[in-house]
Amino acid sequence: MARAVAARGNGEFALAIDAMGGDHAPESVLDGLELAAERHPQARFLLVGDEARLGALLARRPRAAKACSLRHAPESIPGDMKPTAALRVRGSSMRGAIDAVASGEASGVVSAGNTGALMALAKIVVKTLPEIDRPALAAIGPSARGDVVMLDLGANVQCDARNLVEFAVMGDAFARAVLGLTEPTLGLLNVGSEELKGDERVRQAAETLRDSHLGANFRGFVEGHDIAAGTVDVIVTDGFTGNVALKTGEGALKLMRDLLRQVFTSSVPARVGYLLARPALDRLREWMDPRRYNGAVLIGLNGVVVKSHGGTDGVGFAHAVDVAMDMVTHRFNERIQEGLARLSDTTPRVAATPR
Amino acid sequence: MARAVAARGNGEFALAIDAMGGDHAPESVLDGLELAAERHPQARFLLVGDEARLGALLARRPRAAKACSLRHAPESIPGDMKPTAALRVRGSSMRGAIDAVASGEASGVVSAGNTGALMALAKIVVKTLPEIDRPALAAIGPSARGDVVMLDLGANVQCDARNLVEFAVMGDAFARAVLGLTEPTLGLLNVGSEELKGDERVRQAAETLRDSHLGANFRGFVEGHDIAAGTVDVIVTDGFTGNVALKTGEGALKLMRDLLRQVFTSSVPARVGYLLARPALDRLREWMDPRRYNGAVLIGLNGVVVKSHGGTDGVGFAHAVDVAMDMVTHRFNERIQEGLARLSDTTPRVAATPR
Repeated sequence: MARAVAARGNGEFALAIDAMGGDHAPESVLDGLELAAERHPQARFLLVGDEARLGALLARRPRAAKACSLRHAPESIPGDMKPTAALRVRGSSMRGAIDAVASGEASGVVSAGNTGALMALAKIVVKTLPEIDRPALAAIGPSARGDVVMLDLGANVQCDARNLVEFAVMGDAFARAVLGLTEPTLGLLNVGSEELKGDERVRQAAETLRDSHLGANFRGFVEGHDIAAGTVDVIVTDGFTGNVALKTGEGALKLMRDLLRQVFTSSVPARVGYLLARPALDRLREWMDPRRYNGAVLIGLNGVVVKSHGGTDGVGFAHAVDVAMDMVTHRFNERIQEGLARLSDTTPRVAATPR
Repeated sequence: MARAVAARGNGEFALAIDAMGGDHAPESVLDGLELAAERHPQARFLLVGDEARLGALLARRPRAAKACSLRHAPESIPGDMKPTAALRVRGSSMRGAIDAVASGEASGVVSAGNTGALMALAKIVVKTLPEIDRPALAAIGPSARGDVVMLDLGANVQCDARNLVEFAVMGDAFARAVLGLTEPTLGLLNVGSEELKGDERVRQAAETLRDSHLGANFRGFVEGHDIAAGTVDVIVTDGFTGNVALKTGEGALKLMRDLLRQVFTSSVPARVGYLLARPALDRLREWMDPRRYNGAVLIGLNGVVVKSHGGTDGVGFAHAVDVAMDMVTHRFNERIQEGLARLSDTTPRVAATPR
């Protein structure tokens, strides 16, 4: 199986791109590809969408035009369409891009379209790796000690101990491929760091991880504040908790940004103060720029599937392409399969304990 | 039952105080009482702890000395003691204070000591209200649109739909008593705001709440970012998710504060900028001051039980006393019991669906 996946990397295209997904598509997608083509000069992209519109836009973006092949798709999936309905749409740009991964033409797909539709289509068309129970949604975020990977972010609202262990294996592979870490540390999100805290599910997952080949880098339980503190490189949790934690953290940072804007416009001296501190504040803003962290990845599938934020611009879309390219280039799926093979060598398969 | 609880409010003391719990006890506790005695001139406090030490400290705090009666307790519970061990310690200051609530001498207790021990002792000694399955931990935090109540914050890592509904009733009563809101709005924390998202448990709780007397103020599902946005006044969730969300939000705010400190010390112009914007930045700092939000409440018991942060100072401890006084004064437990009675009038008891 590992061979078959590797062979896919030799398809004609590095990535298939859903050109019509996202709030500002296709313009933002093509702006992103113009940047991506410069950063990945060897890569070829299969651009799927409305041929006439895309042709006209490519004419004004010479690098993207050179890197892309066009494939017509007459339909696009609206942002508010239910996944079940999206599965029935024939000829959508998202479906065309995903089909190219399933057929081996491309190693991965990037879409800024409907998240639920992308997840449903990818699971059904690209399919889950044979050793994986369920794919997970992973992303990278900023912390006090460098970038942090977190998963699952909402693909699975109910998980058992085995799922959490698989997420750890996938998170480890992701941190190696995308963050370039040689020995990423792992933590399991819990309500307390003492061994007896939390439910049976997380305790059982912790025990399995401690005894596995990941044991040396497994730091045990971590808590909510460890995400921003960057205590570990990879935070493993179920999709319900992960989704809430991600959005709670983003909400807190947004509140702080909004309040600072009020502070710096509250008086003339405060405005002058802002101007004086501006270079450092700009560096801070740049460091926290959500576009730098664009690209959530559905991992555990027979190919690379990256979801760009729907509202992003070309800079953000190019970052999502970077994430996908890192995963394709660094044999991400082979690493997962190696990790899972080592896991089943060293540990018995843990029993299912649904939450 | 409601009568019996009300009668407790006529005990000799408004609150019993664990004088020996907390990192800086008993000094910080007595500093807090000196402030509290000024804010609540009618209230009498039962101060439980090392009589000799407390007598000497009271001699230098005239208001606290006037408001407090001393009761000797030879022991104190260490911060790292397991709850099961804490239950066996006879003569601790925490136990003495909790006993005073159980006997009806005091309407509530405030402690900055060991959280697990306080929760275990309170549940066993003060006991759960007859209509409540499980007590919950609640607290108040800042948002873009005023203060927000969140519960459960970790008392119950596994909850069923009925527990979530009870948390909503208790959160509603808490927001009325402590925030002084007449019609607090409620939201159920979930991974998406669409009705079909989340697990069976939250969907069932939402259905029950929609049909209950709280239905008019129930805003349905909210997501992580709604906490800081202040979309609703009361956020209801299970103890696992609530604990992670609370600590994730606190962690994100702390990261931002640390980064701002770096920004404003990064250069001479940035330092000057800080000085110019300082009045507005100080207001922001004051607004977000964790001491203003000190005091997590274990609700659903036959008495008011407030946990102060262990590391807080006198200002923070006084805030925890304020929260407890609000609950005592505004007949908090009677409101909960009224709410539960209305709930059982209007809705059938939902089946248990453990997570």
